[in-house]
Amino acid sequence: MKVKVLKFGGSSVGSIEAIKRSASIISKWSKKYKLVVVLSAMYGETDRLINLTKSFSKNPNPADYDIALSSGETVSCALMSIHLNSIKFKSKAIMGWQIPINTSDDFNKARILSVNNKKIYDEFNKYDILIVPGFQGINKNFNITTLGRGGSDTSAVAIASSLKVECVIYTDVEGVYTTDPNLVPKAKKIPKISYEEMLELASQGAKVLQTRSVELAMRKKTKLSVRSSIKPSASGTVITDENNVLENNTVSGIAFSRDEAKITLSKVLDKPGVSSKIFGPLAKGNVNVDMILQNISQDGKFANLSFTLPRQDIDKAIKIIKREKTNIGYKKMQYSTDIAKLSVVGVGMRSHAGVAQTLFDTLGNNNINIHLITTSEIKISVLISELHLETAVKILHKAYNLHK
Amino acid sequence: MKVKVLKFGGSSVGSIEAIKRSASIISKWSKKYKLVVVLSAMYGETDRLINLTKSFSKNPNPADYDIALSSGETVSCALMSIHLNSIKFKSKAIMGWQIPINTSDDFNKARILSVNNKKIYDEFNKYDILIVPGFQGINKNFNITTLGRGGSDTSAVAIASSLKVECVIYTDVEGVYTTDPNLVPKAKKIPKISYEEMLELASQGAKVLQTRSVELAMRKKTKLSVRSSIKPSASGTVITDENNVLENNTVSGIAFSRDEAKITLSKVLDKPGVSSKIFGPLAKGNVNVDMILQNISQDGKFANLSFTLPRQDIDKAIKIIKREKTNIGYKKMQYSTDIAKLSVVGVGMRSHAGVAQTLFDTLGNNNINIHLITTSEIKISVLISELHLETAVKILHKAYNLHK
Repeated sequence: MKVKVLKFGGSSVGSIEAIKRSASIISKWSKKYKLVVVLSAMYGETDRLINLTKSFSKNPNPADYDIALSSGETVSCALMSIHLNSIKFKSKAIMGWQIPINTSDDFNKARILSVNNKKIYDEFNKYDILIVPGFQGINKNFNITTLGRGGSDTSAVAIASSLKVECVIYTDVEGVYTTDPNLVPKAKKIPKISYEEMLELASQGAKVLQTRSVELAMRKKTKLSVRSSIKPSASGTVITDENNVLENNTVSGIAFSRDEAKITLSKVLDKPGVSSKIFGPLAKGNVNVDMILQNISQDGKFANLSFTLPRQDIDKAIKIIKREKTNIGYKKMQYSTDIAKLSVVGVGMRSHAGVAQTLFDTLGNNNINIHLITTSEIKISVLISELHLETAVKILHKAYNLHK
Repeated sequence: MKVKVLKFGGSSVGSIEAIKRSASIISKWSKKYKLVVVLSAMYGETDRLINLTKSFSKNPNPADYDIALSSGETVSCALMSIHLNSIKFKSKAIMGWQIPINTSDDFNKARILSVNNKKIYDEFNKYDILIVPGFQGINKNFNITTLGRGGSDTSAVAIASSLKVECVIYTDVEGVYTTDPNLVPKAKKIPKISYEEMLELASQGAKVLQTRSVELAMRKKTKLSVRSSIKPSASGTVITDENNVLENNTVSGIAFSRDEAKITLSKVLDKPGVSSKIFGPLAKGNVNVDMILQNISQDGKFANLSFTLPRQDIDKAIKIIKREKTNIGYKKMQYSTDIAKLSVVGVGMRSHAGVAQTLFDTLGNNNINIHLITTSEIKISVLISELHLETAVKILHKAYNLHK
C-alpha cells in the first residue's frame, strides 16, 4: 500500500471554491496512493473563534479555549470529506481524538508525542482518503489540546513520519524562494533545499513552513515538499537531507522579519549574574529574547547591553525592565521599534569563507548601518533599520547571485 | 451530592449577552447543586453549518455531516465554560464522546442508548459545573452521531434520567401554555401537566419541548420542568406523573400545526393490501403520514382515501404516488396545502364525555368545516382549513374555559 500525506492550509480551504480546487488535487493523488489529508481551519475561522472567546475573557481558561479553537479544523475536514464523498471517493473525516494524536498536557501549545498509525491502517481497509484536522490532539487525560498557531504543518509531518511516508504541504505560494518574491520580483524558486537551511529560513521569517514542522521532519528524516494549491502543476520545493541536495549554493536564500524591537540598557554593572537578572524576569513574562549583544565599557566596570524581541512584546518588556531596575542596576533604557532583521542562509557557508565579508561590504557600500550581528554555522543575521530593509534585501540578492 | 441538569436552547445561548444571562441563572443554581448544563448551538449556527454542507452536496454523506453539525454545540459549550471560569466557577466543557453518550449507529437521527454517569461523577470531584453539548453522541464504532433536530432536549433528559435527578429546560417562553399566547393573549400558563398530556401537546405542534424528550422522561419517570431564561424568576411548568397533578382539567390545552398537507385518492380499488401499496412506498421515501381516513364507496368496490403529511414533503409524496399509480390503481389524486391541524388534549377526557361534542358543536356553529378527525385516549385532532385556524383556536379556548 503506497501512502502519502497531503496538507492544505487555511487559504487552500478558505472558501467553497478553494475546497473544491484542493479536492481536485487530492483526487489526482488518489489514483496512485492511499491518502491522509491534513487540513487547517477555513481562512479567518480561527480568528473568528478567538474573538468569540475573547468576548468572555482576555485570558480564557486553556482547556475550554482549545475545545473552541479546534472546532475550526473539525468543520473544514467534514466539509472536504462531504465533497469528496459526493464526487464518489471513499473518504472519511477522522478527528484527532479518534486516531488518536497524543500530545503533551499543555493546552494551547501542546507538543505531539505520538500518532497511532494502527487506526490509520485500519481505516485504509475501508477508505482511500482520510481527512484529519491539523492543530488538534488529545493529552493523556483525553482532553482536547491544540498545538499553537500554525500547528497544522506539524500535525502533517508527525503523521507522515509515523507512517514513514512523504508529506506534501500545499500552500498559496509555489515553493520556497531565495527571498520574498513580493519584494524582489527576480527571486527564484529553490527546487531542493536541506532541512537545516529550511529551518534557518523558517525561523528567520520565511513564512512558507512552520519552524516546528521542519525541525520534526529533520529529526525524523521525513521527506517534505511544498507545492502550490493554486498552480498544482508547478514543481515546488523539496526539503530533504543535505546529502540529497546535489549542488550546494554558498547562499540559498535571504529571510527577513519586520517583527522586531530592540532594547538597550546603558551602564549595566558588569558582574556575574546580571544577565540572569535581566533575562530571567523577561522569560518568566513570556518575552522571547532573540539576539543579545554586550559591550564592555572602557573602564571595565560597566557594560552596555542590547537585545531584540518580538515587536508586539515591547510594552510588556519595558514594564518588566522598569520594575527590575534596582535589581539589575542599569542607568538608562532606550528602545526602538523601527528595526528589522535580515538573515543570509546557506549550508555552503561552512566551506566558503567570504559570505560575511560580502554582507558587510555590500551593506557598507550602500551606507546601511548594522546594529547587531549573530551567526550560526549556516546563517548570518543582522539587525538594520526597517527603512533600509527592502534595499538591503535587493542588493544582497544580487550580490550573492541568487537571480541566476 | 445534590445534582441538577439544566438545558439552554439556541436562543438562550444565541449571543454573548444571552450566554452571560444564562450563566447568571447557572450561577444561582450552583450555590446548592452540582450541575450538568446541556447546551444547544448558538441560534442560527446549525443552519449556517447545514448550508455549508449543502454547498457541496444536497445529500451529504451522513457520517461527515454529523461531524460538521455537532461542532455548533461544541463551540457554545466551550464559550459558556470559558465565561464561567472567568467569573471564578469551577466549570469544564465535556464533549459527547468524552462522557461518552452512547447512541445507535444511525447518523443524523441517532437514539441515545446509554449515558456513562461514572465519568460525570468523576469530574464532579474536580468541577462543580459540567457543560455538555446536546444533540451529539458516539456510536459503537466511535464515530460522532447527532440526534436529529431539537435533540438537545433529549440529551438533557437522558443525562438527568441516568443520574436520577430533575431536568430543567430553559427556553424563551415562560412554560407550557393552554395554547399559543401569540395567538390567544388570554392563554394561561399551566403550572403542572402530566407526561401524557405534554406528549400529546408536543407531538401535536406545541413547540416548547421536543416530543422524544417527553417520551423519554415519561418512560424513565424523570422530573422535567420548563422555565424562561429571559424571566428566570417566573415559576414555569412542571411535567410530572399524572398522580402528582392534583386537579385534572378535562381539557389542558389546545395545540395546532400549520405544517400540514392532505392528499386524497379517489376510487381506490377496495381490496386487501392496497394500503400497503400506498403507504409502503411513502415510508420508504421517508414521508411520515399522520392522519388517514378511508371512505368506502356506495357500491362497495372502491374507496376514497385521504391522508395528511408534513407540508414540506408534498412534492416528494406526489411524485411517489404518481410513480405507483398502476400498482395502487386509483382514479384521481387531489391535494391541498392550505390546511391545518388542531388538537384538544386532556387526561380528564377519559372520564368526561362531551369533550368531542363541544368541539364539533363549537366549530359547527361557526361554520368551520372538519376535513378529518383522529382521536386517542386523551386527545382529539381535527383537520380544518388554515384560513379558519386562528378563529377555531380562540373560540375553543373559550368554550373549554381555558381562560380561567
